Amino acid sequence: MNYFEKAQPGHFYAVGVGPGAPDLVTLRAARLVETADLIIAPRSSKASESLAVTAIRPLLCGQELIENSYPMERDQEATRHCWGEMADLVVQRCRQGQAVVQITIGEPLFYSTSAYLLEALANRMSADTIHLVPGISAMQAAAACFGDPLTMQDDRLMLMPAVRLDEVAKALEQCETVVLYKVGPRLKALTGLLAQKGLLDRARLVCHVEQEGREVIVSRLTDDLPDAMGYMSTVIVQLGRKGWE
Amino acid sequence: MNYFEKAQPGHFYAVGVGPGAPDLVTLRAARLVETADLIIAPRSSKASESLAVTAIRPLLCGQELIENSYPMERDQEATRHCWGEMADLVVQRCRQGQAVVQITIGEPLFYSTSAYLLEALANRMSADTIHLVPGISAMQAAAACFGDPLTMQDDRLMLMPAVRLDEVAKALEQCETVVLYKVGPRLKALTGLLAQKGLLDRARLVCHVEQEGREVIVSRLTDDLPDAMGYMSTVIVQLGRKGWE
Repeated sequence: MNYFEKAQPGHFYAVGVGPGAPDLVTLRAARLVETADLIIAPRSSKASESLAVTAIRPLLCGQELIENSYPMERDQEATRHCWGEMADLVVQRCRQGQAVVQITIGEPLFYSTSAYLLEALANRMSADTIHLVPGISAMQAAAACFGDPLTMQDDRLMLMPAVRLDEVAKALEQCETVVLYKVGPRLKALTGLLAQKGLLDRARLVCHVEQEGREVIVSRLTDDLPDAMGYMSTVIVQLGRKGWE
Repeated sequence: MNYFEKAQPGHFYAVGVGPGAPDLVTLRAARLVETADLIIAPRSSKASESLAVTAIRPLLCGQELIENSYPMERDQEATRHCWGEMADLVVQRCRQGQAVVQITIGEPLFYSTSAYLLEALANRMSADTIHLVPGISAMQAAAACFGDPLTMQDDRLMLMPAVRLDEVAKALEQCETVVLYKVGPRLKALTGLLAQKGLLDRARLVCHVEQEGREVIVSRLTDDLPDAMGYMSTVIVQLGRKGWE
C-alpha cells in the first residue's frame, strides 16, 4: 500500500482503529476512513453505539455510515450468516465503484469481527481488492498503562482468551508473559486460579483501555475484586524474564 | 494521557513509531514527536541510519535529534551500561525542562531497546513523568500483508524469538498461531524444523515489513530459501483454528 493512499474505488479495507482513543488511530487508518464512501462499523447487539465509531468520530465528514449489529453468542451459524449478508452488501457497493472501509476497535488481526467479514469476502472478491490495516490492540494499550515491556530478550508471550482455565494454567507454565482477553465475566474464576498458583501479585488488569470515561486500571489483582467486569477486560500476567541464554 | 496532548516539559516518552512506513505512525506518536524538544533514536551499530527516523522523517521540524548507537551483542553488561548513560542524559534534559521522546521502530513493548532505557529510568525519574506509547508491531504489519487474522474465536497465539528451536517445537504443539521474531540468521535451521514437522506450507515470512524498497514477502516457506535473511524477519505459522468449544 502506498503511503497516505486514499481509499480506492472498488476496494475493501478492514481497518483497525485502535482501542478507542481517537489519537491512537494510525495516519493510514485515518486517511482511509476520511476518503471512504461507505464505513461499516460493527456494533455488539448489547451496545448502544459502536466503540469503533467513537475512535474515528473526528474523521467523519459525510461518509455513509452503517452500524451493523452482530450476534454476541458463540454460535457459528448465526455469526457466519450475519457476516455473509454484510459481505454481499460490500461486494455490491464495491461493484458500484465505492470504496468501503470496515472499522473495528483494536486490531482486526486479534479476535475481531473483521475475521468473519474477510472470510466471507474471500469467495466473493478478488484478493487484490481486499486490504487489512493493523491497529493498536487492547493488549498493547493495556501494557502501556504500566510501563513494563511485554517481552524483552528471549521472552515468550502467549495471547489467549480466558475461556478454558486448564489451558490458561498450562500457558502460565510455558511463557514469561501471558495476556488474557475476554476476561470480563470470568474474572472470579481466573482470580481463583492465579491465587492458587501464588501469581495474583504478578497480574494486572485493564478494562475498557483508552475508552474515555470508562477505563479501569487495576495494577495488581486481588481476591476482593468484583466477580465480573466489562467484556473488554485484559489481564496481563508477567511471570518473569527469560533473559539471554 | 489526554487526546492529542503535546509532549510536556520534564517528561519522557517511549514512543513506538510502527514498522517503518510513515503512515503507520499513530496520531498520538506523531503529535509527541512534533512537539518534542529532544528526540532519541536508537541505531543498531551495524546500520547506517536509524529505521525509526525513517518512519518519522516527515515530522521533523527542528527538534534536536540524537541517534545513539547501541551494542547488538547479547551482552547484558555492555547493553545496560550503554542505556544507563543514555538515561543520565534523559534525566539531565528533563530537569532542564525539556520534553524528551525516544522513538523506536515497531512496538516498544515487544523486544525493543526501549525496555533498557525504561529500566534505567525507573530509578532515576518519577513514574508519573515516564510514558509509553504503543506502536504497530512487525507481527501485525506482517500478518496484514496476508489478510489472515492472527487469532479468532478461542485461538492461542505465541510470540517468541526463533532462538531456541526446542522451544519453538514445543510452541508449535501448544497454540494455533506461532509468531517468530529474530528469524533472519536462523532461517535455515527453522525451515528444517518446519519441514520435519510437515509445516512448511503453513509458514509465511516477511522481512523488513513496511520498509520502503526493502520489504520481502514470502507467502509460503520452502526449503530452497536463502540460508539467512535480514535480522528483521518475522515468520508466522498458522497451525489451525480452535473455533469455539
